[in-house]
Amino acid sequence: MKLTYSAASPFARKVRIAAIELGLIDRIELLPASMSPTQANADYAGKINPLRKLPALILDDGSVVVDSLTIVDYLDDLAGGGKLVPASGPARWLVRSEHSMIQGMLDAMLLCRYETALRPEALRWQAWYDDQWDRAWQGFKLFDARREVFGRPLDITQIALVCALDYADLRFASCGWRDAFPNLKAFHDAMMLRPSVHDTAPPKP
Amino acid sequence: MKLTYSAASPFARKVRIAAIELGLIDRIELLPASMSPTQANADYAGKINPLRKLPALILDDGSVVVDSLTIVDYLDDLAGGGKLVPASGPARWLVRSEHSMIQGMLDAMLLCRYETALRPEALRWQAWYDDQWDRAWQGFKLFDARREVFGRPLDITQIALVCALDYADLRFASCGWRDAFPNLKAFHDAMMLRPSVHDTAPPKP
Repeated sequence: MKLTYSAASPFARKVRIAAIELGLIDRIELLPASMSPTQANADYAGKINPLRKLPALILDDGSVVVDSLTIVDYLDDLAGGGKLVPASGPARWLVRSEHSMIQGMLDAMLLCRYETALRPEALRWQAWYDDQWDRAWQGFKLFDARREVFGRPLDITQIALVCALDYADLRFASCGWRDAFPNLKAFHDAMMLRPSVHDTAPPKP
Repeated sequence: MKLTYSAASPFARKVRIAAIELGLIDRIELLPASMSPTQANADYAGKINPLRKLPALILDDGSVVVDSLTIVDYLDDLAGGGKLVPASGPARWLVRSEHSMIQGMLDAMLLCRYETALRPEALRWQAWYDDQWDRAWQGFKLFDARREVFGRPLDITQIALVCALDYADLRFASCGWRDAFPNLKAFHDAMMLRPSVHDTAPPKP
């Protein structure tokens, strides 16, 4: 299997952490890729994903698995199932819903990043930025209060959440989430003790 | 159960079609909601989803299931499982990956819509619009060529695809997808014969 990724992508990092935790990382060849809106990439769009997004898992028969949650589900299944995403019952829908929220928080932070780092300065819209940032921030607030998340066995909610927090550090270093959300700070400190999390941390800004 | 939705939301429509096809629509109370970036909605953000997105399924115990795929998976499970999303094997990862691509196409079309209908005119960036539109268009091109999709029993790929095509009609009426993609036109015509699809069509632009 081959995984397209970049070191800074929080979506690809989720998959890399999951693959390490599931004991499957040695079966995956990592293919570095660089992707940015407004940059054409006909080869990637035509052969891998018309959305030009990372990550994508390319199976040995050539078929492509996207997006990051689907890849994690696929790897979880390969490892026996029900490891990082509960297989059934209320726990399944809780974790899947939590993961969707964190995915949306990451999407919102990415839109903030594009607004300030990609869009020409004269065309930036503060109200859009503020709105997207509020989605991420309200999400962090929700998880800071949902302390039961932190005591569960490792799951995709926890993996996605640490990736989102480190993405905030990477791109919004002065946002102050540690001061605002002390439970998230303690959670993040604990997660960083895991080699899978520590060793996949994004480059320093 | 209660489902937050708007008549124009392709994401909510996916769930409505799925609920009808699974025989569960009578168990769902539809809650109309209006959501737009830059419009605060502290009540929805605090009680339902910090991302302020539609749809959300509110279960009888008050827990919230998001996003649209997770809701469809939940309903599919309620209906016995493996109906609209294959339960296992290569078919599962194929359909899940196809659905992720269509979800991304919808996200891209929504960003195009926000760029032209929401963002002040002086702040619009054509290169961004073109890039997002290209993602949707390349996706339609992929599915037009993937004719095996159209002959399968009804699944979430087909449901998402018809919602994406009708969203193109709603917001980008002159984009010309019928001329460019004749296989998608035939597929769309056939899908519109289903009451679940026909009766949930978005309002005319």
